[in-house]
Amino acid sequence: MLYLTRRENFNAAHKLYNPNWTPEQNDVVFGKCANLNWHGHNYYLYVTVKGTPDPDTGFIINVKELKDIILRTVIDKVDHRNLNLDVPFLQGMMPSTENFAKAIWEQLANEVRRPNCELHCIKLYETDSIYVEYYGE
Amino acid sequence: MLYLTRRENFNAAHKLYNPNWTPEQNDVVFGKCANLNWHGHNYYLYVTVKGTPDPDTGFIINVKELKDIILRTVIDKVDHRNLNLDVPFLQGMMPSTENFAKAIWEQLANEVRRPNCELHCIKLYETDSIYVEYYGE
Amino acid sequence: MLYLTRRENFNAAHKLYNPNWTPEQNDVVFGKCANLNWHGHNYYLYVTVKGTPDPDTGFIINVKELKDIILRTVIDKVDHRNLNLDVPFLQGMMPSTENFAKAIWEQLANEVRRPNCELHCIKLYETDSIYVEYYGE
Amino acid sequence: MLYLTRRENFNAAHKLYNPNWTPEQNDVVFGKCANLNWHGHNYYLYVTVKGTPDPDTGFIINVKELKDIILRTVIDKVDHRNLNLDVPFLQGMMPSTENFAKAIWEQLANEVRRPNCELHCIKLYETDSIYVEYYGE
Amino acid sequence: MLYLTRRENFNAAHKLYNPNWTPEQNDVVFGKCANLNWHGHNYYLYVTVKGTPDPDTGFIINVKELKDIILRTVIDKVDHRNLNLDVPFLQGMMPSTENFAKAIWEQLANEVRRPNCELHCIKLYETDSIYVEYYGE
Amino acid sequence: MLYLTRRENFNAAHKLYNPNWTPEQNDVVFGKCANLNWHGHNYYLYVTVKGTPDPDTGFIINVKELKDIILRTVIDKVDHRNLNLDVPFLQGMMPSTENFAKAIWEQLANEVRRPNCELHCIKLYETDSIYVEYYGE
Repeated sequence: MLYLTRRENFNAAHKLYNPNWTPEQNDVVFGKCANLNWHGHNYYLYVTVKGTPDPDTGFIINVKELKDIILRTVIDKVDHRNLNLDVPFLQGMMPSTENFAKAIWEQLANEVRRPNCELHCIKLYETDSIYVEYYGE
Repeated sequence: MLYLTRRENFNAAHKLYNPNWTPEQNDVVFGKCANLNWHGHNYYLYVTVKGTPDPDTGFIINVKELKDIILRTVIDKVDHRNLNLDVPFLQGMMPSTENFAKAIWEQLANEVRRPNCELHCIKLYETDSIYVEYYGE
Repeated sequence: MLYLTRRENFNAAHKLYNPNWTPEQNDVVFGKCANLNWHGHNYYLYVTVKGTPDPDTGFIINVKELKDIILRTVIDKVDHRNLNLDVPFLQGMMPSTENFAKAIWEQLANEVRRPNCELHCIKLYETDSIYVEYYGE
Repeated sequence: MLYLTRRENFNAAHKLYNPNWTPEQNDVVFGKCANLNWHGHNYYLYVTVKGTPDPDTGFIINVKELKDIILRTVIDKVDHRNLNLDVPFLQGMMPSTENFAKAIWEQLANEVRRPNCELHCIKLYETDSIYVEYYGE
Repeated sequence: MLYLTRRENFNAAHKLYNPNWTPEQNDVVFGKCANLNWHGHNYYLYVTVKGTPDPDTGFIINVKELKDIILRTVIDKVDHRNLNLDVPFLQGMMPSTENFAKAIWEQLANEVRRPNCELHCIKLYETDSIYVEYYGE
Repeated sequence: MLYLTRRENFNAAHKLYNPNWTPEQNDVVFGKCANLNWHGHNYYLYVTVKGTPDPDTGFIINVKELKDIILRTVIDKVDHRNLNLDVPFLQGMMPSTENFAKAIWEQLANEVRRPNCELHCIKLYETDSIYVEYYGE
């Protein structure tokens, strides 16, 4: 069993604001992340698959294929977008790094499943000093 | 003459959209950066001052004082903000990295001037692979 | 179950020197790390908690709260300090990266425990090329 | 149980080309990685051992000793070499990152085994955005 | 006058070997860089242009256009290639970082010249700890 | 004219404390950097030489020779040392990053002078967010 990771980047806007709360409650919990006019990040996404290498190629999965899947199912939908407004797979969800990482897993898990490999981990950096990992359960 | 640099970070939303142009023109020139619902970045700001060290401290400028000036005159005004909507010193300006770097210079130049030191360079990273430098002229 | 990591940094002095050994033994085992007059590092500390997100916030733990706990229970006690002389929670202990990481776990484990989350991992970089991880057992 | 990681770097040439396939097949699967005249990388190797610290030193393993083992059994054999032609422990093997990481494990596992510690993980970066991990099974 | 920098990456093989010298002379001067079977690097290329921003866009040059020029005139010719054998613009030249950086300048200088901007600097990293800068004279 | 830079790292302890001042004055100016028991850093040193490449090698200076000079004249004297107590070339000087960078220049300027090259810049990082540059005048 080996683990292969591919990194991709994207830039997006969001805010953390619970519409069921008063502005004061939002300010207490989310602070400046609740700014009504949005803020944004350069996100770094690490996608890890696990499996056994193919004897003819030495690959768990062709990393170009993995890149294409990540671009098609995630990056094209979130890059230079507003996570609260523009992304169907995030609708009705607080776009915290935790929820966002879990939602990316849902986008990718079936797409990378092969007889010899499967999705292992989503690691999502919101900033250099904050990241979330999700292993599918 | 020595050069001292202090880095600070902030997260902001913006869009590149010229209101005097049609949506099609904006799309041709700015591409996905013109997304009406904004996108955002983790900006990295490097502020360089030049001068001669004080013989008692060995400092061109106390780096804690430099940090406080950067926080007060720049970071507090742009962190977790929308560069197009929320920042008085960027009003009426396309928030390109070029214009933004020049505007940060204007915020800082007088604040860091001392008998033995002055502002030398603003270096602003929008992403890991794009940055702008401005030397005041 | 999701995993959230917050990074903090600090700068400290230390030496690796076993007082029960001769200077020669210390030199053989610890080399230049045994320099009697100390040396130091820019440490990078990654604190990972695991748990389930709160449905109202999308947070395992509010990252601002996590930061405050790390600052209060670890960083304020070690930043710009001498690890052998100045830090009560390291007394009587060789300040190797291994022992230091374990001691940081002891400082943090109870402080971050919540009904929905707990401490998962301490990852401590001494330099860019040396780090230690501890999972509490 | 603690986990200690040491990083080392090396620069090498390789190509991904299956001699049992036609040039066209190689081009479809490996793309520009199949260039007959080779290409190369700055590899980053992270070696993690796990164990319990020695009470006299606070070390799982002396990191200088770990470095010497990595240099002697891996780096000296691959640095500034051609992975397809020059490295006995890679002969007859497609030098994919997956196969390479597994082969490095075989080089190191016995060398770092001690009563109180053993090899835990090989993490090998081929580029900033592609890496493989192997845990020995 | 502002300075805009765009970074691109590529992976290539090369060797440093002077065919007018004996193998022993090559070994003395170039060491393991003279390995006949090649070695390689992940190169990082920083291209800096200087100029005045366009009032309608805030751009010295559209960074997408700059990226396209770098890809077409440099990256497509060197990525996953052998610098000694495969690159017409490096023929007859020792592929040291110095000579390579200068040759990249020649490829780019005319391509990025505009009424309001021109090439300012080529900065080329061979490894994390070695880079060369060239300013065109 | 080309510019070649080589990076080296070292770890050292220091404090910023003016013995002609009261403890209170030291605390006001240097804050926690004045801790009597020292603190420390992982320093990153970038040494830049400028010159014209040798036609036979393509080198301004052989980077292995440059590395050996930096190790012999700087790193061996400061690595794992106390900058206030252990380093003859820093005696009688406040070990601020400014003074330290200038002192490193004095160590290196004559050592790297060649008919075709000379020292251009010393860039010294004390932390990820603070660095000083010196150009010899």
